[in-house]
Amino acid sequence: MKFCANCGSAVTRRVPPGDSVPRAVCDACGSIHYVNPKLVVGSIPQWESKLLLCRRAIEPRYGYWTLPAGFMENSETAGEAAARETLEEAGAKVDITEAFSMVSVPYVNQVHLFFRARLLALDFAPGVESLEVALFDESEIPWKDIAFRTVGMTLRHWFADRARGAFGFHAEDLR
Amino acid sequence: MKFCANCGSAVTRRVPPGDSVPRAVCDACGSIHYVNPKLVVGSIPQWESKLLLCRRAIEPRYGYWTLPAGFMENSETAGEAAARETLEEAGAKVDITEAFSMVSVPYVNQVHLFFRARLLALDFAPGVESLEVALFDESEIPWKDIAFRTVGMTLRHWFADRARGAFGFHAEDLR
Repeated sequence: MKFCANCGSAVTRRVPPGDSVPRAVCDACGSIHYVNPKLVVGSIPQWESKLLLCRRAIEPRYGYWTLPAGFMENSETAGEAAARETLEEAGAKVDITEAFSMVSVPYVNQVHLFFRARLLALDFAPGVESLEVALFDESEIPWKDIAFRTVGMTLRHWFADRARGAFGFHAEDLR
Repeated sequence: MKFCANCGSAVTRRVPPGDSVPRAVCDACGSIHYVNPKLVVGSIPQWESKLLLCRRAIEPRYGYWTLPAGFMENSETAGEAAARETLEEAGAKVDITEAFSMVSVPYVNQVHLFFRARLLALDFAPGVESLEVALFDESEIPWKDIAFRTVGMTLRHWFADRARGAFGFHAEDLR
C-alpha cells in the first residue's frame, strides 16, 4: 500500500480523468502523484590525451570503473550537476564544455547525459563513493570493467570523435 | 506537513547522513524521498518549409503557441516521449530524427529537450490540450505569442541552422 505525501491517506493506482497513464491518486485530498524519469548527469574529464575515471565504492557495480556521474538535483543546470558530481566523486575541478552524449534507458526510467570537460588540475582524489580515481589513455581504458553500458558507449564515441578530429552530439537508446 | 508515501507517517526535512541536500526523511520506516528535475520533451515537426505549432488550451500560457511537448513518462525513451506528445497535442504522426536542443530551466526544476521531426501526414488536429494546430513558414511564426522561452530559443536555432545549411545540437541554460 502507498500513501499520499500531501495528506497521509492511502492512495489508489488508476488512470486519472483526461490522462492515459495509471498514477497514485488520493481520493481524500485529490492529489495526483506523478513519477517521471530521472536524469543522470556526468562529465568526461580530459587531461591532455587522457580521461579521468572513478572506481565505484558503492553498489550497483561496486569495484567497476565509471565516468563521474549522478542524479541531477533540483535548482541546478545539467552542466552544474555534471561539475558537482565530478567534484564529489573524484575531487576533480572541471570546466564543463559541450554536451556530448545522451542515452535513454527506459527499463530503469533514466536518461543519462554526459558533457565533455576540461580537467583543471591534477589534485583529484576519490570521494566517499569512489575507491580510486585515475587518468587513462585510450589503450589503458579498462573496457571489461566499465560499470555501465552508457559509460562504455560514451567513451567509445569520445575516442572515435577524437580520432576523426571532430566532436559531435550522440543521442541513443538502450533497451 | 508532508507524509511518507511508503508508510503514511509524517516526514521531516533534513540532510540525510552522507548527503548534502535536504530531503523528506521518514523516521518511522527510514525512507528518503528524493525529488529531481523533470524532463519536458517535444518535437519540431517539419513539413516542407513549415513547422507545426499548437495553441495551448490549458494553463500555463493558455492561448499561446508552442511546439508539442510534455513531461517524459517512465518506460519510454526521450524520442518516444516526443512522438507521443506530438500525437496527443497535435494529432500529428511524426518520425523523430535528431536531438536538436536542450535547455536547463533550474528555477522550475526542468530540462527541456526538443527533437527534429518529419511530419508524416497533414491529417493533424488539436488534442484536448490544444485550441488549434497549424503550419507556419518562418515569416509567419507568431514570435510575440510563443508560450515558453525554451520554445522561442529552439525555433530561432532551427531557422538559423536551416539558413546556414547544417543542423547542430544546442545546449543552453535559462536563468
